[in-house]
Amino acid sequence: MSNKNAAPARGTRDILPKEAQLRSWAVSRILETYSKHGFTQVEVPIIENIDWLTGGVGGENEKLLFKILKRGDKLDLTEVKSEDDLCDLALRFDLTVPLTRYFANNHALLPMPFKAIQIGPVFRAERPQKGRFRQFTQCDIDILGEPSYLGEIELIAASAEALKALSLRGFEIKINDRRALESFHRYCGFEESRAGEFFIILDKLDKVGIDGVAKELAAKSFAPGSIDKAMKLLQELSSGRDPVDFYSEIGVADEALSQIVKIASFSEDLGGGDYSVSLDPTVVRGMGYYTGTVFEVAYPGWGSSIAGGGRYDKMLERFGRGSPAVGFSIGFERVMSILSDNADSSRGAAQRYVTILFAESDELKPVYQLADRWRQAGYSVSLRHRQAKIGNQFKRLETEANLARREGDFFGVLVYGEDTEPREL
Amino acid sequence: MSNKNAAPARGTRDILPKEAQLRSWAVSRILETYSKHGFTQVEVPIIENIDWLTGGVGGENEKLLFKILKRGDKLDLTEVKSEDDLCDLALRFDLTVPLTRYFANNHALLPMPFKAIQIGPVFRAERPQKGRFRQFTQCDIDILGEPSYLGEIELIAASAEALKALSLRGFEIKINDRRALESFHRYCGFEESRAGEFFIILDKLDKVGIDGVAKELAAKSFAPGSIDKAMKLLQELSSGRDPVDFYSEIGVADEALSQIVKIASFSEDLGGGDYSVSLDPTVVRGMGYYTGTVFEVAYPGWGSSIAGGGRYDKMLERFGRGSPAVGFSIGFERVMSILSDNADSSRGAAQRYVTILFAESDELKPVYQLADRWRQAGYSVSLRHRQAKIGNQFKRLETEANLARREGDFFGVLVYGEDTEPREL
Repeated sequence: MSNKNAAPARGTRDILPKEAQLRSWAVSRILETYSKHGFTQVEVPIIENIDWLTGGVGGENEKLLFKILKRGDKLDLTEVKSEDDLCDLALRFDLTVPLTRYFANNHALLPMPFKAIQIGPVFRAERPQKGRFRQFTQCDIDILGEPSYLGEIELIAASAEALKALSLRGFEIKINDRRALESFHRYCGFEESRAGEFFIILDKLDKVGIDGVAKELAAKSFAPGSIDKAMKLLQELSSGRDPVDFYSEIGVADEALSQIVKIASFSEDLGGGDYSVSLDPTVVRGMGYYTGTVFEVAYPGWGSSIAGGGRYDKMLERFGRGSPAVGFSIGFERVMSILSDNADSSRGAAQRYVTILFAESDELKPVYQLADRWRQAGYSVSLRHRQAKIGNQFKRLETEANLARREGDFFGVLVYGEDTEPREL
Repeated sequence: MSNKNAAPARGTRDILPKEAQLRSWAVSRILETYSKHGFTQVEVPIIENIDWLTGGVGGENEKLLFKILKRGDKLDLTEVKSEDDLCDLALRFDLTVPLTRYFANNHALLPMPFKAIQIGPVFRAERPQKGRFRQFTQCDIDILGEPSYLGEIELIAASAEALKALSLRGFEIKINDRRALESFHRYCGFEESRAGEFFIILDKLDKVGIDGVAKELAAKSFAPGSIDKAMKLLQELSSGRDPVDFYSEIGVADEALSQIVKIASFSEDLGGGDYSVSLDPTVVRGMGYYTGTVFEVAYPGWGSSIAGGGRYDKMLERFGRGSPAVGFSIGFERVMSILSDNADSSRGAAQRYVTILFAESDELKPVYQLADRWRQAGYSVSLRHRQAKIGNQFKRLETEANLARREGDFFGVLVYGEDTEPREL
């Protein structure tokens, strides 16, 4: 009997052991890789004062806040004019905004530059749909306090290694720069004040194509001549025009151009063929806070990006402490979907399980000693009382094993007093 | 400059890298141990429908709920009569209540008995005080569907191993049974209906002593004759009366008594002297949902318990699926405090860090190759541009190392082109 009432809250989900096992393995591989690259883990609260999560820095995500009701005397239900009267805290919608608060609060106790790892849940009250949840895990690294492009290179190198540690290969890292997008916008002759809007529409290029972008720009009353100019440039790029040539035409400053060229060529070199790195003048990244380099990672056969990030040199200013900053986020949920679909990729998470069956009348101590020997041999060992109809019990264990099994897993059963080795299920 | 505005929300805290590193190490040791004992990780959402978190099962914790404001059309600010009109979700206050929902929702896809690990944040709107936070980590194992005392033994064995994996020794596991507490209450002649109240007061014995318990019982108008009888028995226990003798006098049923005696003696035997296990008729455990065995773990020199749990055979009935259940929770935050205080205990988390300094004009590739060699040798490696005044840079690195250093850590700096080995900081 499935119990409808016991379903998780709308838009959230229960993660079953088989998937949880894969996620746990992935987290440990990612942490291990990032740690080797000199990043250190931090823990930032899941609830934050609502003021820090609003005020424009989170863009559209601010509209998706889960707000927490005030408590005790602070809550006055007699005069409620707006939500603001009711709430003082909210659940974080990403890991970047809380990290900037953390850095401002603790900078005196942190190394400089500070290289942070965060893996944890974030919350957005989005309309639930397939593959999109209201609680999901993000996995970020950030470097705060590094003004040079060494920051970008360290992030890309570490993130590419982390994806490789999850046995992903053949992914494509695409690099662009917000300053280049601004040059593009200016070069086409769009109104200076509408750059943000232009970026949001251009960001849909992957989904709607060049014509789709043109249509939407027209619908939003961007100037037809400018649209034509932009479309011509996008056509040229999609026909294989050298991005550096494009950047030069639209007037990207030498310094910005030389930086992204260096980042891309060095990162490509570092990959040794396991992944590719290229410049892509159409990469935008959604968040409004980026100020320089932006990058994203595509995986063959998967429409949207599996990782991305960029430089956000201005965000820390709201805390009265400007500091250069650059971050890279692995789309943890998406990567988990890829691994789940791909038996080869998740084989590293394989486990060996054995259930020892013994009679209730057996002396416990030798049973535990036997369990201990198999634990020391690397098995996950469970003890169960054997039942009168052991054939039925075997069948149930087999069913359970098949529900939990991943490619490469071993499931066995060992009958105490009868078997010396587990029988494979 | 410390920025007051950037402080975390009241009652929450930022965890610095040095502590986060220790926590991460502890989580991985605990997971590894529990996994060997046949427990599997699950992930249950942090937000739940508010109805599942209320209704009495959470006792006092229900009063400490962080409630989440409804969104969109569901929120009507024009007619607010109570908090119930405003909220549909809340943050979980423990991991046990959500686990029972999870089990009811997914039982058809889970093994039986189901052995679950959960490590994650829970939230309680308590008045903030030293060492008590509004967001904190719990670390639970539970066995759902095991009616026999094998459940208790598996939990105690695995939890004791987990504490040992964190290099704790000499802890004391104390075992009691709710049914024995009921016998105690009945034997003293207290009013049948006030058993719950009696347990709550008795639970304070460690803090207030026998006289304190007597005073509070008197203040709450428990019958003086019964109080005297209870105090006499508590005195005898504290003077070393054999608990089994006590249990027999108060009329604990043979079955319950034989179970806890077996659990205690076998668990003690299993410990081989690394920890002790004893029967303690005064152990209560706060939660109202326990129905049988209860246990807690004391650590020498630390007043309150560092772990605890018990059997809660009735809790799943609210989901229409009764199932025997037993759980054990490690007080993660308390254990972290002990490890932080005890250099020896946390030495297992020791790390080796090296910073490679190189000139901005150096070619990057050989620098990365050098970094890679040290990474492969097990170091956490960071790259930084060397500064003109390298002496000052060394001093800063030393300061940073001292802020982050734990007993056993190695911090080094390697100047590219000059050093072949890191210089220790």
